Amino acid sequence: MYRMMAAMLIALGAALLTGPRLIAYLRKLHFGQTIYELGPAHQKKQGTPVMGGLMIALGVVLAAIVCHPVPWRGLSDPVWPLLGVALLSMAVGFADDYIKAVKKRHDGLQPMQKILGQVLVAAAFSVYCYASPAVGSGIWIPVLNRVWDLGFWYIPVMTLLIIFMVNSTNLQDGLDGLLSTVTVVGGGAWAVICALLLLLPGIRELCDPAVAEVAGVVSAALIGGCIGFLRFNRYPAKTFMGDTGSMLIGGTLVGIGMMTRMQVLLVLTCLMPIVSSFSVILQRYYFKLTHGKRIFLMSPVHHHFEKKGYSETQIVSMYAGVTMISSLIAVLLVCAGPSA
Amino acid sequence: MYRMMAAMLIALGAALLTGPRLIAYLRKLHFGQTIYELGPAHQKKQGTPVMGGLMIALGVVLAAIVCHPVPWRGLSDPVWPLLGVALLSMAVGFADDYIKAVKKRHDGLQPMQKILGQVLVAAAFSVYCYASPAVGSGIWIPVLNRVWDLGFWYIPVMTLLIIFMVNSTNLQDGLDGLLSTVTVVGGGAWAVICALLLLLPGIRELCDPAVAEVAGVVSAALIGGCIGFLRFNRYPAKTFMGDTGSMLIGGTLVGIGMMTRMQVLLVLTCLMPIVSSFSVILQRYYFKLTHGKRIFLMSPVHHHFEKKGYSETQIVSMYAGVTMISSLIAVLLVCAGPSA
Repeated sequence: MYRMMAAMLIALGAALLTGPRLIAYLRKLHFGQTIYELGPAHQKKQGTPVMGGLMIALGVVLAAIVCHPVPWRGLSDPVWPLLGVALLSMAVGFADDYIKAVKKRHDGLQPMQKILGQVLVAAAFSVYCYASPAVGSGIWIPVLNRVWDLGFWYIPVMTLLIIFMVNSTNLQDGLDGLLSTVTVVGGGAWAVICALLLLLPGIRELCDPAVAEVAGVVSAALIGGCIGFLRFNRYPAKTFMGDTGSMLIGGTLVGIGMMTRMQVLLVLTCLMPIVSSFSVILQRYYFKLTHGKRIFLMSPVHHHFEKKGYSETQIVSMYAGVTMISSLIAVLLVCAGPSA
Repeated sequence: MYRMMAAMLIALGAALLTGPRLIAYLRKLHFGQTIYELGPAHQKKQGTPVMGGLMIALGVVLAAIVCHPVPWRGLSDPVWPLLGVALLSMAVGFADDYIKAVKKRHDGLQPMQKILGQVLVAAAFSVYCYASPAVGSGIWIPVLNRVWDLGFWYIPVMTLLIIFMVNSTNLQDGLDGLLSTVTVVGGGAWAVICALLLLLPGIRELCDPAVAEVAGVVSAALIGGCIGFLRFNRYPAKTFMGDTGSMLIGGTLVGIGMMTRMQVLLVLTCLMPIVSSFSVILQRYYFKLTHGKRIFLMSPVHHHFEKKGYSETQIVSMYAGVTMISSLIAVLLVCAGPSA
């Protein structure tokens, strides 16, 4: 527990301290955001430095190492795959941001390159979890409080889950402070869930304590990093996290969910990113089916609300409120497990 | 757990459904806010209906009754004193708002009347807790994980605590969405703490399960009510909660803290209201000691930040971030209890 508190504060401090220097550096490198031409009235955001997500990554890595529970398990320690999926997911986003910043065009990586990178990372992590004695191919089902063994299907299903989650957080990152705010709330739920996995009879049997403790430290660090980042990203934003940050967040959260075998709860703790994804998918299918009609004025759905006249801060507040409710439900579902 | 989820959703629904009608009704009665002449540039808020806090109260009471754990303990049920301290604290604020709305002047109740009302409510609740077999005069000390019996001192100390907390939340309520946002975050911590009090070995022995369950339901209802209220209060506000709402929130939170004997954690879950109070006290003493110098441009300290040029939404975001950190620390301290 004390490690988790320390991790949160270390990541917060790291983001706050390195933030101004990082932003100045990115600005010097002209890593400014090239705003997508079709976006609603965000042209004034042109030139805001992206890749601010690096400060979250720095905080998470630093805190995960410093606050790592003893004893270390060497190369088989659960911290490596978790940081691995987080940082490799980030690497795909980083490549994208980097190419955009150099080419100064909106299209970074080729779609196929991006997908290929994500598939590789996702498949590798799924295979790791499947093969790891500390994780395996079972996933916990809330309410029923049963572990459902997916067998070999675990690998393709989880590969798709990772790709879906990483792209969902990426789509969610469209308004100042939006993704970081919902991540702070959802990450808070994960920190508590990891604490419950360490302590609560009937639940603590579900997860290797070393995994739960590492996942808890990383959750807490993610919260601290995102709060530190929000200091610079809240409206009006001094930096954007970029694909670098949004894919880091997606990778970290899905990694925590999978390693604790509680990935079903991602539906609740990451509700709004998932809604964003579905709004894009729905919009596209509806458009094709009706040959040109739209459900939303614009997708992802937060841009729909924006076009409806809601301010950015109103949308962030609404998304945070909904995430608060769904995240608390996630925590309570874990608590309700043993009594079912 | 399911009761807590239901309580949150019922209170949310109640606030969202009654909100528009309540605001229209208050507007008709001309229960508009008369803005304090010295406040920074808030004159445009003149006429916004106050007492929006009534929708939170409605949600909390409704959810507390509907989701009450069975069996009811009749008149000795813990729900009565908890709702009692919440609603009677609110009644003092309501009287204040009502007089202001009728007289159309900033000074509502006479200071002595207000204090007298608060002392009566606070003393009665403290005596109840002292005498109740389910509560008693012990308070839990985190880190040490010991119950410290205050003996007869419990009554005066807790009376002061209640008065302090109710006035702290009252002082915190100065910007659109500020108090309700920090209450959602801090209330989330209380909901989780109550779940831990029901389930976690080493912690569940500290609290009567009936008390923990009632307190959990009320915490969850408070979150739902505040999120519903935020729908109408977020910047730019359509209604203010008024002293009605802020004193309800203070009374509810201190009631939950005292009945679960975890009142020490209020320092963390209600950190920002407490900081507000201290900023006012510091400012006043410093002013007297130095014969006219000030520490803050204006107190409570959120107005200081406002005068420094931060926007309302920036201040709310900052306060929410700090509360998120301190609330998570509160939850982790409870988790760390048994392992100490």
